[in-house]
Amino acid sequence: MAIDYKKELETAAKNMILVHEPDLLIKMIVRTIVQKIKVKHAGILLRDKEKNSYVLNVSGGPKGIRVPAGFARMDPDNPLIRFFTTKRLSSVMKNGAFFYSDGEKMIKNSRIPAELREIIRQSLYQMDIFDSVAGVPSYFQDSLLGVLLLGKKANGRNLRHREIDFLVALASDVAMAIRNAQLFKDLEQELIKKHNMFINTTVALAAAVDAKDHYTHGHINRVTNICMEIVAKLTQKDKVKFSDKFMENLHIASLLHDIGKIGIPEAILNKPGPLTDEERKIINGHTLIGVNILQPIKELETVIQGVKYHHERYDGAGYPEGLKGDAIPILAAIIAVADSYDAMTLDRPYRNGLSKNAAMEEIETQSGKQFHPMIVQAFSELYREGKI
Amino acid sequence: MAIDYKKELETAAKNMILVHEPDLLIKMIVRTIVQKIKVKHAGILLRDKEKNSYVLNVSGGPKGIRVPAGFARMDPDNPLIRFFTTKRLSSVMKNGAFFYSDGEKMIKNSRIPAELREIIRQSLYQMDIFDSVAGVPSYFQDSLLGVLLLGKKANGRNLRHREIDFLVALASDVAMAIRNAQLFKDLEQELIKKHNMFINTTVALAAAVDAKDHYTHGHINRVTNICMEIVAKLTQKDKVKFSDKFMENLHIASLLHDIGKIGIPEAILNKPGPLTDEERKIINGHTLIGVNILQPIKELETVIQGVKYHHERYDGAGYPEGLKGDAIPILAAIIAVADSYDAMTLDRPYRNGLSKNAAMEEIETQSGKQFHPMIVQAFSELYREGKI
Repeated sequence: MAIDYKKELETAAKNMILVHEPDLLIKMIVRTIVQKIKVKHAGILLRDKEKNSYVLNVSGGPKGIRVPAGFARMDPDNPLIRFFTTKRLSSVMKNGAFFYSDGEKMIKNSRIPAELREIIRQSLYQMDIFDSVAGVPSYFQDSLLGVLLLGKKANGRNLRHREIDFLVALASDVAMAIRNAQLFKDLEQELIKKHNMFINTTVALAAAVDAKDHYTHGHINRVTNICMEIVAKLTQKDKVKFSDKFMENLHIASLLHDIGKIGIPEAILNKPGPLTDEERKIINGHTLIGVNILQPIKELETVIQGVKYHHERYDGAGYPEGLKGDAIPILAAIIAVADSYDAMTLDRPYRNGLSKNAAMEEIETQSGKQFHPMIVQAFSELYREGKI
Repeated sequence: MAIDYKKELETAAKNMILVHEPDLLIKMIVRTIVQKIKVKHAGILLRDKEKNSYVLNVSGGPKGIRVPAGFARMDPDNPLIRFFTTKRLSSVMKNGAFFYSDGEKMIKNSRIPAELREIIRQSLYQMDIFDSVAGVPSYFQDSLLGVLLLGKKANGRNLRHREIDFLVALASDVAMAIRNAQLFKDLEQELIKKHNMFINTTVALAAAVDAKDHYTHGHINRVTNICMEIVAKLTQKDKVKFSDKFMENLHIASLLHDIGKIGIPEAILNKPGPLTDEERKIINGHTLIGVNILQPIKELETVIQGVKYHHERYDGAGYPEGLKGDAIPILAAIIAVADSYDAMTLDRPYRNGLSKNAAMEEIETQSGKQFHPMIVQAFSELYREGKI
């Protein structure tokens, strides 16, 4: 049954454009070729921009992998690469492809300069290594992006004209799709890098503020870890479905929840004795100082809720606004539990910290009073699983 | 002369895949159609995901703009949109396109249910508004992404079969290319957002640390602005070509240069009198405290150079390492000038700040001693231009 190559090509091109993972894209292409052209195997030599070389990315087919992916790496002065990058040579290709059989004729043709014939001879040697009968190059803006390498057809016949047309058109689409996918991947990596830079800087600065409070060493990191565990537990129990955005906001909010302490005088923060009511009031001000610091950052709108309300109580007796029950943003309610638990376990000059177990019991006692019952339950389970 | 539509299509698709600006892409497509099919005008109705409606993005042609871009906005229940999203209706399209002339026949065909004929009648009315003779829909995963609207051919004839084939295939490529471009744009915007979030948070936290030092209010922002002006001046004078990455690093480094002050006791930082040698030594420690805070962030490797060395002197008499001349990273050398200038103009309890002019003269006096001469020169010019 004849294959409608034009249709196949359109389908292939359409699938390609939205695949933004270069490796996956290349696998799809090789599979398409092997299935449609029924060759024993096919591979793609692809330019590695950074290392200035060409790598055999995939080489598969029904006869199994011939050359392991990534195994073969060619410099730009490899004869096979030079064949496709030398205008005088690549211009003799038929219909945009280089056939092993044509190469054999060319090296016997004395009208071709000896030096070029030598490159062709060495190119054929390279094609021997990959057991290839044809190579189809992909160019992007005059530079060689890659080469499709084809094995023999399974039925032993030569490649037909329209099969070659299909492959040449496909190779050209491949070049664009791979270029597109690479640009996409670059952008995604840039985004990950920027995200890490943001989180790491926030961690570093929050830890520096944390260090001002001599008695809470490591507090920020512990609170952040507990918060993330609580969200994971709530998600696992399927009680609440949190978005990635929520997770990110909670992560940042737990890092920054005490950032307002930067505005509290050291003398009060590190007072080696119980606080007076007046001093307690000043320390409680750290939630709103934190809000003031972060207010200008419109991307942190949700994060600020966590900073502002992490000292609210479920029964409405907290600060700064006395919010009650579900009026307290869930983000802040999670931080409240994690923050209180860690604070209770810390030694202060005027009192010893509670044991982990005693702190845990106090959290449970406060379920529905100081804390949201759903969060206390998740917290209890985590504690019993030894995750806190 | 006949047009090779297959080739045109391949060229168009190839150009499309690497255009990641949706608006530009749409303009290219409309231009291609108007030129190749020689219609009087063409437009694209495109889905606006956020607003759940379809917008006429471009409507141009040799006869001039018929409907201003963005002017027409259709809800999903607009009859023309419903025509393409109702399976029973869109399935009667010939070769994937809806022709005005076919619609006229359908509304007279009593075998078509009256309610569907009513939608067709209203669709034709919509096409009248746009002076269109045909509509070609683009679908992506069963949802209507957009509709190509075509005016009459310039020569008055009907659209030919292969022209319609070309348009249908193009519309399908258009759908994928626009989807690709939108994904790209989303990612780019995400990146910009993340960058702003990072910079704004750094600004906020740096300003909060800055506020601990009662006498330097607004110092961080002024230093950052002066640093960016100096770089702009150096670039303008073509003495040094700075990369975007350098600019970003300088921006972050100037924001964070004094971050180590968070580790200096408030009593010393805000001492209302001249400092003892011992206290001076402690304050000088802020450079290395800053390095310690930022050290874990590998993306800030270059930024840390600015934090570490902004108190080095060109003559080697600075701290913490006594680096000399060009051994001082240029990033740090720029911050050094901006930081010193601003510090000199500040009032302290035990001395009045210098006038701007006196501070400027002191900077010039220190050229080649405390400061890098090239940077002093740029600074002087900026000062004389009133930019500082």
